Amino acid sequence: MNFLEERILKDGVVKEGNVLKVDSFLNHQMDIDLINEMGREWKRRFADKNINKILTIEASGIGIACIVAQHFGVPVVFAKKAKSINIDGDVYVAEVKSFTHKKVNQVILSKSFLNSDDHVLLIDDFLANGDALQGLISICNEAGATVEGIGIAIEKGFQIGGTVIRNFGYDLESLAIVEGMNHETGEVFFRKQD
Amino acid sequence: MNFLEERILKDGVVKEGNVLKVDSFLNHQMDIDLINEMGREWKRRFADKNINKILTIEASGIGIACIVAQHFGVPVVFAKKAKSINIDGDVYVAEVKSFTHKKVNQVILSKSFLNSDDHVLLIDDFLANGDALQGLISICNEAGATVEGIGIAIEKGFQIGGTVIRNFGYDLESLAIVEGMNHETGEVFFRKQD
Repeated sequence: MNFLEERILKDGVVKEGNVLKVDSFLNHQMDIDLINEMGREWKRRFADKNINKILTIEASGIGIACIVAQHFGVPVVFAKKAKSINIDGDVYVAEVKSFTHKKVNQVILSKSFLNSDDHVLLIDDFLANGDALQGLISICNEAGATVEGIGIAIEKGFQIGGTVIRNFGYDLESLAIVEGMNHETGEVFFRKQD
Repeated sequence: MNFLEERILKDGVVKEGNVLKVDSFLNHQMDIDLINEMGREWKRRFADKNINKILTIEASGIGIACIVAQHFGVPVVFAKKAKSINIDGDVYVAEVKSFTHKKVNQVILSKSFLNSDDHVLLIDDFLANGDALQGLISICNEAGATVEGIGIAIEKGFQIGGTVIRNFGYDLESLAIVEGMNHETGEVFFRKQD
């Protein structure tokens, strides 16, 4: 069991409906030492990749991306979410439909900050069905940037996002993959990783 | 002239209507080395303060707060913005009215992560009229937490926020205070600081 899985068991809270609350250390209150440990682990897992930029999406991805960026010595760019805005200026826009909520959202990024010279590591806190991540990848494709890897803190392995992303051939490294939860006992079950 | 003022002159873009775009290094693409320098400077300015937590607000404040937190060795908590939501659970809510847009927004923070034992440094990227910051202070007051200081990257000195916050007696340290801009020449004029 790795450091993030241990922390989830210690401080995560399981709620009915397969909800895992990690807001005491990851996405509301943020434990910076833990996130630095995540940065070191992703640097180890992506050691052979030549990465010059970290891309994430607001809001909770931003802090994680900034800490992790220090381990790669690169800048961060974050995409913005919008319901539907008037686009002024030169931006990439990806329309992403939420499988769960049927809503369509836009993921937006200035064209100034991503182009075909970029070798990108995508970082986010959670992966479930993965519509936000699909939007980020779509923007990288539009920009001609290379997605060198994807680092996710917590993947919900019982939802489809991780499977789809790996089927497409992306190098997805989730530090904890949750296979199931029991809100009555508080148990969390992880997929075994090497 | 300090490092942030120099960077604004180098890479900031002045647009009509007193708009200063710093999205190439601060709030869309983020220069992590620059933000670490900001962290060192705030640590110097708040050296006599006993700070145990950094509080900010989504979205662009989060990354800055996480990097700065490393210089204080403390966790980050970020408040969330909402138009008007159904509050479930135990949260602080501050209603803040935008002087410019006349809209009312809510600033929301879980009660689990702020209480009367906390000595807080507030961090954000911009201060103009300061309604978001007023909401954060209101939440600290509701929690009984002590606001030890406020660190702002760029203050618009010709708007009212900084004056009000200092009138209330808060220790506000803005790294760059813009007194005026000229979008035709691209000039930016800073308030002299010690």
